[in-house]
Amino acid sequence: MAVITKTLVFQTKGEEDIIDITDDVIKAVNGTMLDNGIVTIFVPGSTGALTTIEYEPGLLIDFPNSLDRISPRSLHYEHDKRWHDGNGHSHVKASLIGPSLTVPFVDRTLSLGTWQQIVFLELDVRSRRRKILLQIIGE
Amino acid sequence: MAVITKTLVFQTKGEEDIIDITDDVIKAVNGTMLDNGIVTIFVPGSTGALTTIEYEPGLLIDFPNSLDRISPRSLHYEHDKRWHDGNGHSHVKASLIGPSLTVPFVDRTLSLGTWQQIVFLELDVRSRRRKILLQIIGE
Amino acid sequence: MAVITKTLVFQTKGEEDIIDITDDVIKAVNGTMLDNGIVTIFVPGSTGALTTIEYEPGLLIDFPNSLDRISPRSLHYEHDKRWHDGNGHSHVKASLIGPSLTVPFVDRTLSLGTWQQIVFLELDVRSRRRKILLQIIGE
Repeated sequence: MAVITKTLVFQTKGEEDIIDITDDVIKAVNGTMLDNGIVTIFVPGSTGALTTIEYEPGLLIDFPNSLDRISPRSLHYEHDKRWHDGNGHSHVKASLIGPSLTVPFVDRTLSLGTWQQIVFLELDVRSRRRKILLQIIGE
Repeated sequence: MAVITKTLVFQTKGEEDIIDITDDVIKAVNGTMLDNGIVTIFVPGSTGALTTIEYEPGLLIDFPNSLDRISPRSLHYEHDKRWHDGNGHSHVKASLIGPSLTVPFVDRTLSLGTWQQIVFLELDVRSRRRKILLQIIGE
Repeated sequence: MAVITKTLVFQTKGEEDIIDITDDVIKAVNGTMLDNGIVTIFVPGSTGALTTIEYEPGLLIDFPNSLDRISPRSLHYEHDKRWHDGNGHSHVKASLIGPSLTVPFVDRTLSLGTWQQIVFLELDVRSRRRKILLQIIGE
């Protein structure tokens, strides 16, 4: 059993950018030479989130639309009143979806469905440089 | 320390079927002979999700109702326009709740509350054969 | 590699109390003398949840407000009709956010962002004594 840490770094385009990191996670896990285990994918930050989705152009519109119905930018946010950074709705969405995703791997293969990709959701209102942590535990 | 993989296979009845998999997870963990660790429960697929709930008839109505308010089937989804499978709202709900749940076990007992069950949520619009992965890590 | 279990116990003030447990998690992880790994934070119970947030007074109002829009107390819940405990909306919110959060640690430091805190959300309608489990796995 071993713990191996890897990081992904990329620039996002701004609000509602959805980045497919599946291939990067696969490469990271394969690079460890571990056969079986889990990878915990984590964003250190409170305006981004991790989940899985079928990465096709329709859902890249539908999913942000649904998040906007939950927490529309147009509402009043106490966060914005205090800090004036205009991203109160970003924080709310990020806390709802969560900063962490754990995916098993078996025989050196991530246990994803055929139409299931791992994505980072940029929920902040501006382009950000994001550093994502992969904590890989296995044997 | 060891990593042990188990799978659960079952047929769902279709949209908003909520399946209590608690006993199956308990049996799987006990079968490993590991005393302490975590089990990561994962659905390989983008129209199902995992969470916990008090598994009683009222909430089996209330929880799907709340998900429908977030992402009603009656809205327009770009996914459906492109793929014509009528499950755009299913994908949105699944990405929101997430495909993964990690539960600790201590002294061979899952750390659940008395009124807390582990459930698989079928969010797709039709009956599906589901294979759920349990990645158990412990000692 | 080792698995070490710790618990946090505290009293909540009631509905929409958001408790910052970051320092307690840091102390627990440091107390293990493990350098690298993950901590799974879990609430045994179906009316509380775990996530991260920027812990500042504005968001402590905004986030509960958003959850109330998803699952308002004022709606009819089948759960309440059957059990008369008035917390159907609490259960729905808890299942949506989830009972579990996994955070990596590297060189004995939790991988959190500067403005990101780990929080327990009390979603039940009354003050509760909560026991949170920390399952720490690492080397």
